[in-house]
Amino acid sequence: MKMLRSLILKPSYLLLKFNHNTTSLPIRVLNMQTFSSVVSPPSNAVVYEAHGQPDEVSKLVNIPGKELKENDVCVKMLAAPINPSDINRIQGVYPVRPEPPAVGGYEGVGEVYSVGSGVTSFSPGDWVIPYPPSSGTWQTYIMKDQNVWHKVNKGVPIEYAATITVNPLTALLMLEECITLNSGDAIVQNGATSMVGQCVIQLAKTRGIHSINIIRDRPGVDEVKERLKDLGADEVFTENELEGKNVKSLLGGISEPALGFNCVGGNSASMVLKFLRQGGTMVTYGGMSKKPVTVSTSSFIFKELSLRGFWLQNWLNTDKAEEGRRMIDRLLGLVKDGKLKYKMELTPFNDFNTALDKALGKLGSQPKQVIKF
Amino acid sequence: MKMLRSLILKPSYLLLKFNHNTTSLPIRVLNMQTFSSVVSPPSNAVVYEAHGQPDEVSKLVNIPGKELKENDVCVKMLAAPINPSDINRIQGVYPVRPEPPAVGGYEGVGEVYSVGSGVTSFSPGDWVIPYPPSSGTWQTYIMKDQNVWHKVNKGVPIEYAATITVNPLTALLMLEECITLNSGDAIVQNGATSMVGQCVIQLAKTRGIHSINIIRDRPGVDEVKERLKDLGADEVFTENELEGKNVKSLLGGISEPALGFNCVGGNSASMVLKFLRQGGTMVTYGGMSKKPVTVSTSSFIFKELSLRGFWLQNWLNTDKAEEGRRMIDRLLGLVKDGKLKYKMELTPFNDFNTALDKALGKLGSQPKQVIKF
Repeated sequence: MKMLRSLILKPSYLLLKFNHNTTSLPIRVLNMQTFSSVVSPPSNAVVYEAHGQPDEVSKLVNIPGKELKENDVCVKMLAAPINPSDINRIQGVYPVRPEPPAVGGYEGVGEVYSVGSGVTSFSPGDWVIPYPPSSGTWQTYIMKDQNVWHKVNKGVPIEYAATITVNPLTALLMLEECITLNSGDAIVQNGATSMVGQCVIQLAKTRGIHSINIIRDRPGVDEVKERLKDLGADEVFTENELEGKNVKSLLGGISEPALGFNCVGGNSASMVLKFLRQGGTMVTYGGMSKKPVTVSTSSFIFKELSLRGFWLQNWLNTDKAEEGRRMIDRLLGLVKDGKLKYKMELTPFNDFNTALDKALGKLGSQPKQVIKF
Repeated sequence: MKMLRSLILKPSYLLLKFNHNTTSLPIRVLNMQTFSSVVSPPSNAVVYEAHGQPDEVSKLVNIPGKELKENDVCVKMLAAPINPSDINRIQGVYPVRPEPPAVGGYEGVGEVYSVGSGVTSFSPGDWVIPYPPSSGTWQTYIMKDQNVWHKVNKGVPIEYAATITVNPLTALLMLEECITLNSGDAIVQNGATSMVGQCVIQLAKTRGIHSINIIRDRPGVDEVKERLKDLGADEVFTENELEGKNVKSLLGGISEPALGFNCVGGNSASMVLKFLRQGGTMVTYGGMSKKPVTVSTSSFIFKELSLRGFWLQNWLNTDKAEEGRRMIDRLLGLVKDGKLKYKMELTPFNDFNTALDKALGKLGSQPKQVIKF
């Protein structure tokens, strides 16, 4: 990353601000050049030079090729998503972030383009994802040490391979590492339409775990409920439907949930707490409402609830690389078998501005945006 | 308890409402009677017939003697405290409570008066406390199975033997069972002048654990600070002194606390959270401000804080009777050695009304009230 930064600061490299009012990306068409086998192709990258609003500080930058070192793998990117955490990194409000100037993006999938002389596990044409995920996936070519690439099966659509780490792995880890759940147990979550939320529903289902899902009141709520139930949700309630209710009476035959997931905060988090059984645990992994979590004293003392957080970054820091890679493979296996799906929209790289606007919520509720290079 | 209830409902037994404006208790002086060795003496008891305000629903009741069963131990009570949870039980707002009519009180110390034919571990004159603690200690004689009495050393003042379970045991368990603390570590707590708070300071001190203490702003605050420092507090701050501060800058040489105790809620709980180090735990065991605990999303996700509760009752339910008794002995040993002390006021039983008013906060800030029978 350091090398990249120094490179893109040199004035000789093309640095273009996105023209935000057009959908076509003002990429300068590069003359075809012949690269030495040990130099990567130049890369077109979405770079932010300072922290700020992503649609104001992001620029398209052409980064020249670099010499491949012995253990480097050069990857031609195929697809990379715009996750909320990517936006927070550009805004400078995410605790783990590169110092600008930096290339945006944190996960994605690509095809091996060339390899250094010491690389034996990867061949040109292989599909790979960065693992552990790392900054800089919003560009056409990336070069990294072979240790931080993970080969994936080509049998899944690129948009799934591109998005399998940040959200589905979070969902899987939260279900498996917080408390021990058995078939027949139940979980409750808010923000159930989020990508993690959709994954939680399906991953729970594969283990015979029931899910109670809380969503915002919104237009077309019946359709949303139907979609989540198609994914395997046992119950879906809007926040208004739960207001003032004895939520336990709504459980039907489902056991009281031992585990709750909160990515909203405020009143929505309180509803997760209400559903939890004696001694239950609520795990906070997001705060979409920007409101804090409020908990009564009796919830702690008499109901014995525990509250904690989950952040993939902390788990990644615990150095469980092999375990993480096995989980990624498991998740992609579920995708291949049609047991894990979520809503996404593939957008061509030269429509990056539109995808960014959608990811920023400027165009209403939109599916996850995945850039196709 | 059932037997007691049926007895006190019989109209032939004396049932007198406390005359709340006098300090002398209208107990009918009983004629001296000769009891068979297998019948306990009649008992004067503070009984509440229904849930409500303690000074309105409490009555003095004379309960006739009962026949001692084989394994019963009859105890002449010496002292029993008025704890906040005793008041909450009478009010009907405490989750574990006897159904009224019931005798008040939950812990205390007494002297063995007589024993059933099968009792070999206790002799008249022994000092005993109910363990596990149980309802009904506000009376002059109690009869219970030998299994629920615990013999204590007579070398401590009765007010300490009477109060060693509910508060000091809570403090000891919170310090020992929540997370592993080592000498040189630190804890932070609010409500530091409470009985649990005073115990936490001293028990931490005996293990080389530093304590950071938060207290309410109040008249005579310097004297309170001095008193807590005399007990072993490393730092004492009022809530106002912490407002808007970077609390970490106030730690001096003390390490960031890994564990926090909250018995207040609201802003005071937020201050405990602020002091905690990355990955720290806050344990809530009370809510004196009647305000909930409010936690930001980033505290959970990025600061990795965990929040839980502690309630002695739940620990007692885990069936660790022997461990609990050993801990009680350890605590009384510390009292004997002058390493554990806290402010109390011994009040004669016939001034129960005054003690109750003080415990209810009607007479300003008062030390813990302990009834002397």
